[in-house]
Parts: sequence; C-alpha cells; structure tokens
Amino acid sequence: MEVTRKLARYVIESRYADIPEKVKHEAARSFLNWVGCAVGASRHETVENALAALSGFSGPAQATVLGRNDRLDIMQAALMNGITSHTFDFDDTHLKTVIHPSGPVASAILALAEHSPTNGEDFLHAFILGVEVECRIGNSVYPPHYDVGWHITGTTGVFGAAAAAGRLLRLNEQQMVWALGIAATQSSGLREMFGTMCKPFHPGNAAKNGLLAALLAQKNFTSSNQGIEAKRGFANVLSTAFRPEEITEGLGKTFEISLNTYKPFACGIVEHPAIDGCIQLRNEHKFKAAEIESIALKSHPLVLELTGKKTPQTGLEGKFSVYHSVAVAIIHGAAGEEEYSDEVVRNPEVIALRDRVTATVEPGIHEDQVHITVKMKDGRVLEKYVEHAIGSLGNPMSDADLEAKFRAFTKGILTQAETDKLIRLCWDIAKLKDAGEVAQASVPAAITAK
Amino acid sequence: MEVTRKLARYVIESRYADIPEKVKHEAARSFLNWVGCAVGASRHETVENALAALSGFSGPAQATVLGRNDRLDIMQAALMNGITSHTFDFDDTHLKTVIHPSGPVASAILALAEHSPTNGEDFLHAFILGVEVECRIGNSVYPPHYDVGWHITGTTGVFGAAAAAGRLLRLNEQQMVWALGIAATQSSGLREMFGTMCKPFHPGNAAKNGLLAALLAQKNFTSSNQGIEAKRGFANVLSTAFRPEEITEGLGKTFEISLNTYKPFACGIVEHPAIDGCIQLRNEHKFKAAEIESIALKSHPLVLELTGKKTPQTGLEGKFSVYHSVAVAIIHGAAGEEEYSDEVVRNPEVIALRDRVTATVEPGIHEDQVHITVKMKDGRVLEKYVEHAIGSLGNPMSDADLEAKFRAFTKGILTQAETDKLIRLCWDIAKLKDAGEVAQASVPAAITAK
Repeated sequence: MEVTRKLARYVIESRYADIPEKVKHEAARSFLNWVGCAVGASRHETVENALAALSGFSGPAQATVLGRNDRLDIMQAALMNGITSHTFDFDDTHLKTVIHPSGPVASAILALAEHSPTNGEDFLHAFILGVEVECRIGNSVYPPHYDVGWHITGTTGVFGAAAAAGRLLRLNEQQMVWALGIAATQSSGLREMFGTMCKPFHPGNAAKNGLLAALLAQKNFTSSNQGIEAKRGFANVLSTAFRPEEITEGLGKTFEISLNTYKPFACGIVEHPAIDGCIQLRNEHKFKAAEIESIALKSHPLVLELTGKKTPQTGLEGKFSVYHSVAVAIIHGAAGEEEYSDEVVRNPEVIALRDRVTATVEPGIHEDQVHITVKMKDGRVLEKYVEHAIGSLGNPMSDADLEAKFRAFTKGILTQAETDKLIRLCWDIAKLKDAGEVAQASVPAAITAK
Repeated sequence: MEVTRKLARYVIESRYADIPEKVKHEAARSFLNWVGCAVGASRHETVENALAALSGFSGPAQATVLGRNDRLDIMQAALMNGITSHTFDFDDTHLKTVIHPSGPVASAILALAEHSPTNGEDFLHAFILGVEVECRIGNSVYPPHYDVGWHITGTTGVFGAAAAAGRLLRLNEQQMVWALGIAATQSSGLREMFGTMCKPFHPGNAAKNGLLAALLAQKNFTSSNQGIEAKRGFANVLSTAFRPEEITEGLGKTFEISLNTYKPFACGIVEHPAIDGCIQLRNEHKFKAAEIESIALKSHPLVLELTGKKTPQTGLEGKFSVYHSVAVAIIHGAAGEEEYSDEVVRNPEVIALRDRVTATVEPGIHEDQVHITVKMKDGRVLEKYVEHAIGSLGNPMSDADLEAKFRAFTKGILTQAETDKLIRLCWDIAKLKDAGEVAQASVPAAITAK
C-alpha cells in the first residue's frame, strides 16, 4: 500500500471549502492557545540559553520569536517558537496519542508566512493539514512507538511541519512525497529528555527540520517514495507495530484537530485528573494542608511512568511530579506556571504535603480519570472520583477559558490592549490578509521601541 | 554504570601527547581522504539542490563549502560538507560498524575552526576524539542497531560531531554530558533512504546537529545525564542490544580511527571484494564482456541486502547494484565516479552484462571476501577467491594510493598546483597554526577570482 504517497496527495489536493466550520474553529482555538503558550514562556531560561547559542549563526531577520524583539531566519525562528510554546508544557494535547500537535506545525508555518506573505485562509488550512498528518502518523504507531521511548511530539511533529510548510510552498505530489521522506529520516526525540530543556527542544527541532524538509523537497532534493511504510522506513524502524489504515482511511472526512484538547494546568496531561480532583476537594471542604494525614491516588499507569518524580528539585522537575502537583493543588488551589517555580518546589509546606501523597496504578482506569482518597488528621476520609478531568474531550475548556488562560500568559509581557489585539487576530486568523501579522503583534511595543 | 559521563570525561581530559604517532598519521589519512571526497562531489546535483534550498536562510559567511565559492554560517557549512563528502559514497569506512566516521566529525569542526581560529594540533585531536566517540557508540549497538534499519553514520555521527565540537569549544564535564544528550535526542537517519539524496544528507545532518548540540550545551542548555545508557536513552530506544563496555573500556588505550579504511571504488564497501576480483580476472585473462556467458558471486549477506538493485536506472542507484558494479569492473576495469554516471548505468553493453550476473549468499564468508565464477561462452570456467579486498584492513590503500585517489577527485576542479598545496596541508594538518586554512585552500582560484 502506498501510504506516503496517498497522504502526500491528500495534503496537496485538500480544499479549504471542504473543511467543516467546526474544524476551522477548533483550529483557531488551537492556534490561540499556541500563541499564548509561546508568548508566555518567551522570557524563560530555556529560551534565553537557546537564543544565546544560536544568535551568532542566524541568517537574515526573516521571522519573529513570539513575544520578543528577536528576529531570526525562518528555520531558527521555527526552532525557537517550537521551544517557547512547549517550555511550560502547557500547550495542546491530542489525547489519543499524547502528541502536542500545534508546536511543530504552527512554528514552522508562521515563520514561513512572515517570510512569504500568506493569507489567513491558506495558513489555517495548512495548519489543519499539518496537524492531520502528524496525528494520523501518530495514530498508526501509538502506543508501541511511545512505549519504546520516543517523544511522539518530536518524532511525528517533523512530518506535520513538513506537510504544512510543503502545502504553503505549493509542492507538487512527488515533492510532497520527498518532503515526508526527508522528515522521516530526521524523526527523533527521546522520552529520556523529559524534565530537561531538551523536552521543549523536540517540537522546536521538529518545526525546524520539517521546514527544512519542505525547502529541500521544493528544490528536488530526493528521498524515498515510501518514507513512512517501507521495511526500513519510519514506522517499522521506530515502532514495533504499525496500522497503516490509520493514515490512509477517511482522509478528508475526519479531522484529528477535532480531538485536540487544551491544558488548564501547566504540567503533563496525565496529572490533570488528580489536580482537578484535589482543587475540587479543597474548594468543597476548605481544609488546610496541615490538617491532612495522607492523600492516595489511584491512577492510570502513565501517571507514575511519566510524572513519578518523588523529590523534584527544580520547577521543571516539579512538572514531572504528580506528588508536587497534588500538593500545590491543595495549598494554592491552582497549578499554573507560578506553582512550578523553583521557589514553590522548594517550599517546606509544599514538600511536607508532597511527601504524604502516594500513587498507585488502578487497572482499567482511563487517562482522564482518577480516584482520590484524602485522610484527614481528625479521622475523616474524603473521596473524589474524577470521570473526565477539566480540559479533556469530555469536559473541554470553553473559548472564554482559553482567553483567560491566554491573558494569564501575556500578563507582564503585553499590555492589555496588546493582548486584546493579539487575541482578536488569533480568532480572526482565517480572515487575515497576512497571517504573519500575528507574529508581529506578539511583540510588545515596550520592547520594540527600544 | 555512568556511560555518558565516563565518555564525556574522557573527551575533555584526553591529552594530545598521549596519542600514538601511528594514530595521528591514520587521522591525517582519514582527513585527506575526506577533503578529497568533499571537493570531488562539490558540483554534484545533490549539492546544488541543497544549496539552492538553503542559500536564502544562511547566517554570516563564516565557513567554506569545500571546493566552492559559497560561504555559509558554520551550521549550514557543516551540513553541506557532510553532504558533499558522502555524495559519491567514496569516503572512509570503520568496517566493524560500517560507519563512515570522518564526514560528521570533520564537517562540524572544520566549519568551527574557520569561525574560531584553531591550531592544527587541537583540530586533529578533536577529530580523533570525535571519531572515537561515534565508533565506540557504534560498537556498543552494532549490528542489531543497523539491522533494525538505522543508518549508523547518521545516528552515531551526531555524537562524534558533538564531542569533537564540544572539545574545541572547551566544554566542561557537565556541558559535555549535555552535548552528548542533546546529540542523543537528535539521533536519526533511516537505511530506507539509501539510493536517494537523503543518504549523504545523513552525515551532513549529523555534523550540523552535533555542532548545534555543542553550541547549546556551551550555553547551559540542559539535557539528560544518561543520554546514551538510560532506559529511554539512545541505546535502548534505537537498538535491541547494548554492550556499554564497548564505550567505556580501554578509553585512551585503543583508538577506533586505527581501524578506519578507505575505498578504492565509488560505491558501497560490501561490493568491493567483487569489484576487486573482477578487475583482477579481467587483467589476468584479457577477456571481452561479449565472451562471457555468466558471472556468479558467492558473497556476504549484506551484499544482496544493501546492493541488490537488479535494474538500476540512475548513476546513484548503480552504486547500490552489485550487478552494475561487476559489469563496469569487467568492461571498464574500474569503478570510480565515472562508472556510476547515468550514462554508464544506461549503456546497453553494461546492461547486457549486468543481466548475466547472479549473486548468492555464502554462509560463513567475511564482508571483505568473495568467490567469483565466470563462465565463458567457449566453455572455460574462471574462478577468483578474494580473501581481503583492496582497501580493507588486511590490504589497505597506501599513502600514495590515497594521494592518487585525491587527485582523481580534484581533477577538473583544482589546478595541479592547488591540488599539491591542498594535499600538503592535509598531511601537515597537525602542524598548521590555523586548521581553517585547509578549507580556504580547497576553493579554486578560478572560482574565487570571479
């Protein structure tokens, strides 16, 4: 079966008019959330270090690092925006595969759109197609691919970025096949890197490398015709199982971006049910941390596998500790970026509560569910069962929720008027004459005036 | 066991004075061969297409594309020289792992040396260390890693480039550990790409990405401390078996570059015994192709697996056809770059002989051996057993052979005086005040004068 070619053909032949309005709106929600995440983390140490390393080697000032005054060549800008948008681990999640879809795709094409003026319709269309490509490829190999140890956002994101950029570059069918092949042979990113700056590096790298794949293919740099499905292609080398029909069936009829979700909390999605449940318990019972004897979680296995750090030492490590997340949910009633600062992670009250949290695996429980049992020192036992954590498909964030999340990100970086304008541009992305306007509007005047 | 840290510590603590002279000479041989390959392919379509795609996005003119007037930022120059040096598939081979060691390492550090002046001793030292790192990592996972479908030159080359560049950047131990981790998480390259422009893209990409890893680590961009050996690190994710002692034992006592070999023929190393044997038969018996009824090879399994293309359509595909290689060995008495042109691959006489060649697997035969049986139309049966193909460790190319190979590469690109000078600089690399001089001397005056 010609998997790569069939997918390539779909990407170049898809018509914007054939995409349902609801799908387009979900794409705008994803884009808004992505821009907020990128601006919000634009001053983080991860970003500063990467910029310091790259700045001497950038090409022409073609594209914006969102929220900053730095303009880099399009590949470096794609890298940087992929990094910033995933630095807080607060971006979107395709729950079926735990892919964070927007980072690789939007970072690649927004940089490209700043370089080669692109109308908003073409931009949103390419964005939807890129997300489709990466998530379908993810569906075809998940979960064994992830279980092997691959960070699926990096490994599949490079295909999404290549497809979306290739669409905007108007590649022909053969070139799109090659672009996907050049993406395949760059596919990389290890789960071992979770908790280090390399985790957000993965979507950045996927954006940059996917963009490179499309640019090379445009100049007829050849690759395999079966980069995805060949015996020694992506799927067979990077996974122990492969369901090609997940890529080829229903193209143009279903849209993976419809399954996208947005995080209310600044940490790994698997921790969200526990955080949601603990905030609910806190609000219902008004207890203090000191009154709690112990907290026991019964969770999906991935909770322990991905976020089982018992004694996190830094804010970043705190994001990979469900124990820390539960503690701040109880003490602060929140789990935003502030609750994952080094200071909060090292706070004695937080540590004291964190050490009274246990987590075990509950067979058969879903990823957006949790059972929480809180034993109080006075003998009371409080329980909470979360069926669909807030932010999951069964209990999604509203448009207003997403705007509020966006405003929390841009606070202290953009003025309120700048934030208002940027939110409006994101909602109206499909109507813009020049999609690159969003990137420019993300830079605060207080910086640009310097 | 701390594999990554032990390797990092060796790279930063190694002293040039402790490296045997013979190892240094082998390094100079490797470097000479690499420069020749890069200059030789500098006008190939693969290189032109890549340059066309990249040229609009390069940073400052910091480093040379060998043999050309193009100067790019160091990361793009590293990419391009890695591509050119492997385009003819004529570069060096570490036979234990089939890694082509020089491309990723030399491409990264020569670009860096042009940017930050580096004396020849430091340069050669970093080169030896980079080759050590990539080959040891290769030894630890070969052959299962290769059998899975990874192009080992790409996947391990990124570590070699990171280590060598990191040494020149004077990273401390923790930074070197991070550089290896950032390399691990970019490790990529699929064997499916063999026969396309993506094959030489792999060492180029490894050079560029390894250099990026070192630059990021220098600015304290963090990564895992166990990028190689962790449960979800490089070795366990990209291989089904791992022998960490191959990385950590005998560091500073043995040198993998001593095991490097150089190809006398412009194609995959596994075809060399057959080509060597056929040229010997031709020279001994002075027969014509038309007099041959059939040619039967009994070979190592990799010959059929890697070079089993029965009906190659292009020069590049011809390199992956032992049938074509045998035909040109008989007809032309050679298998240089000219014998892998599109014209020769489509030549009716070559095709007619090619179609009379068969190859089968001989159990127990080594990779540098072959049994050849030629049946003549007059009934004679001629046989040849090659025990160590020319260019193998048991029958290495001499320094003079390497110079002759170099001259064949630069013919038509450099004048004889330019070639003489460039050869001298390569042999004298350890004595140069500025290693970057080699890169500048690779550019013909006839171009630079334009």
